[in-house]
Amino acid sequence: MVDVAEQTLADIGEFGLIAELTKRFPQGEQVLVGPGDDAALLRIRNGHVVVSTDLLVEGRHFRRNWASAADVGHRAAAQNLSDINAMGGRAHSLTVGLAAPADLPVRWALEFAEGFAEECSLLGASVVGGDVTRSSEIVVSVTVLGSLTQAPVLRSGARPGDVLALAGRQGWAAAGLAVLGRGFRSPRAVVTAYQRPEPPYDAGPAAAAAGATAMVDVSDGLLAEAGHLAAASGVAVDVTSSSLEIPEPFLAVAAAINADPASFVLTGGDDHALLATFPGDASLPDGWRVIGRVSEGEGVTVDGEAYDGPTGWTHF
Amino acid sequence: MVDVAEQTLADIGEFGLIAELTKRFPQGEQVLVGPGDDAALLRIRNGHVVVSTDLLVEGRHFRRNWASAADVGHRAAAQNLSDINAMGGRAHSLTVGLAAPADLPVRWALEFAEGFAEECSLLGASVVGGDVTRSSEIVVSVTVLGSLTQAPVLRSGARPGDVLALAGRQGWAAAGLAVLGRGFRSPRAVVTAYQRPEPPYDAGPAAAAAGATAMVDVSDGLLAEAGHLAAASGVAVDVTSSSLEIPEPFLAVAAAINADPASFVLTGGDDHALLATFPGDASLPDGWRVIGRVSEGEGVTVDGEAYDGPTGWTHF
Repeated sequence: MVDVAEQTLADIGEFGLIAELTKRFPQGEQVLVGPGDDAALLRIRNGHVVVSTDLLVEGRHFRRNWASAADVGHRAAAQNLSDINAMGGRAHSLTVGLAAPADLPVRWALEFAEGFAEECSLLGASVVGGDVTRSSEIVVSVTVLGSLTQAPVLRSGARPGDVLALAGRQGWAAAGLAVLGRGFRSPRAVVTAYQRPEPPYDAGPAAAAAGATAMVDVSDGLLAEAGHLAAASGVAVDVTSSSLEIPEPFLAVAAAINADPASFVLTGGDDHALLATFPGDASLPDGWRVIGRVSEGEGVTVDGEAYDGPTGWTHF
Repeated sequence: MVDVAEQTLADIGEFGLIAELTKRFPQGEQVLVGPGDDAALLRIRNGHVVVSTDLLVEGRHFRRNWASAADVGHRAAAQNLSDINAMGGRAHSLTVGLAAPADLPVRWALEFAEGFAEECSLLGASVVGGDVTRSSEIVVSVTVLGSLTQAPVLRSGARPGDVLALAGRQGWAAAGLAVLGRGFRSPRAVVTAYQRPEPPYDAGPAAAAAGATAMVDVSDGLLAEAGHLAAASGVAVDVTSSSLEIPEPFLAVAAAINADPASFVLTGGDDHALLATFPGDASLPDGWRVIGRVSEGEGVTVDGEAYDGPTGWTHF
C-alpha cells in the first residue's frame, strides 16, 4: 500500500490533500459547521470577534533547511495566536491557506498541519477551514479569530507616567537566526527558540485584566514595536538597558559573530513577546517586568539616547 | 512631488504600502477597531459568524496581461463573498493578505485595493485588516466573515425528489478565458465576464429563505460542484442539458476554437453562479431556474448519461 506521506501534492491532488489535512484538525465546541463546505459556521458567545491575518513566505519567513515542517506549523500558528494575545484576548478559531509547489512532499504538508494543530491546542483553538493551491514557493496564510473578556488593549492608550513592561522571551529567536544564518546549529537553546517560539499566551489577558493601557506583540523587534506604540499613543518611550536580561547564550553568539548581545534583545523579533504599558502605580501580573518609562514627547530612546543601529525588520 | 503610484513596493516599504491601502478601505458600523492594531475588533450581532478563506496565485488564478489590477481585486473579493452567499449568508468583513515582488508598481496594489473595495461595497462589507509581505509571485489571500438570517444551507442536504437549480451567469468566464488563452480579446462580453464576475449575491439568502435543501458556489465547474453536492448528500444528480441556456457569444467562441459550446456551461468555473437543490414542490425565488433532478443513487449524469470529458478544475 502506498504511504501518502511519501507522495507529492501532485500525486494526491487538491481534494486528497484537503482530506488528509482535515483529519489533523480537531474541531472545538464553537464549531457548528467545520471544514468541507463553502464556509465554516462558528458560534460566537459574547457579541464580538477579534480577527487578524498574517502571511509567511518560504525563504523570507522560514527556510526548510533551518526548520522542520512541524516547526513552521508551530511558528505560523504562534505568530497569529499572538496577535489576539496582544489585544488581551484568546484565539478560538483559525483558517489556513497553503500555496505550495506541486512537487512538495505530502509529508511536509502533513507535518506542517500537525505542528500547527499542536500549537493551536495550547489554547484549545480549532482550524475551521482553509484553502490549498499551487504556487512556485510556499506561502502560508493564516487568519485567526478570538474573543475578549474585557475592552481590547490597543497600541494607542499609553500615557506619560506609565511604565513600559515586557512579557516572554525576547531576543532568543534573533540569536538563533543569527546562528543558523552563519551555518551553525548551536547554542542549541537559541536555535530551538527560533524554530519554536513560545509566546506568553496567558500574559495578554492578564495584562488586560491588570489595567494595561497599551499593548503590542513584538514581531518586528522591541524598539520597532515600541516605536509603533509610541507613535499610536502620541508619547515618548525610553527603554532602560540595565533592566534587559541578556541570557548567557547570547554572549556566546555575540562573541562568535562579533555583535552586541543587547542588539538581539533590542531589535530581534519572532519570539512574540508582548510589550505593554501600565499605569505607574499598577501592580504587574506574573511574567511581566518593567523595562522602561513613558513620557511626553515622541519616539523611542534607550537610556535617554537614540539607538545607534537598525531597529528592526521591515518587508520590501 | 513624487506620485506614490509611480513607485515600487520597495520604494515605499511595508508601512507606506499599508498606509496607502488602508485609505482605500472604508469601515462599516460593525468595525469597533479597524486596520492598524494587532487585530481588528468586530461587533457580532446574532451569535455566530460564517468564515471562509481563498487564495489567488498569479499565473494560476489570474494574469496581469489578461486582467487589470482592479479586475483582480474585484475577482478576489467576489470569489470570497460568494462563499458566504453559498451558505445563504451575507458577508460583512474581510481581511486581505498580499504577498508580492518588491518591484511591483505601487499603482498595481492601489488599483487592486480599489477594485477589491468596490466589489465589497456591493454588499456593504469592509476590509478590516490584512498583511503585506514580499514574495516572488503575487499571492492574494482573502478571509471573509459573514452572517446568516436562518440556518446555513450546506452541501449535504439534497434529497431524492428535489430539483436542481442554478442562479447567475454560468460558463461566461470559461468562454472568456478560452478566448484570452488563444490571444483574442473578443467576443467582448465573455472576456469582460471573465475579468469581472458578477456573482448573484442576493440569490443565496433568497434560496435559503425559500427552503433550499443544499447549495454550493460554482467555482470549479457546474458538474464538478454538482458532484460535490451529490457526494456530500449521498444522492444522484442528473442535469437536463436542454434546460441549460447557451448564450449566443458561446457559439462564436466554440466555433472559433472547435469546442462544444455546452462545455463552457457544464465545466466552466469562475462565474460564481450558485447551484442549489429545492424540494420538488418549492416555488423558486427570482433568478433561479431548474436545470435537473435529484434521485437515489450517486454521482452526476447529463441527460442520464455519464459526461464525456473533463468535468472541471483541480489544483496540483
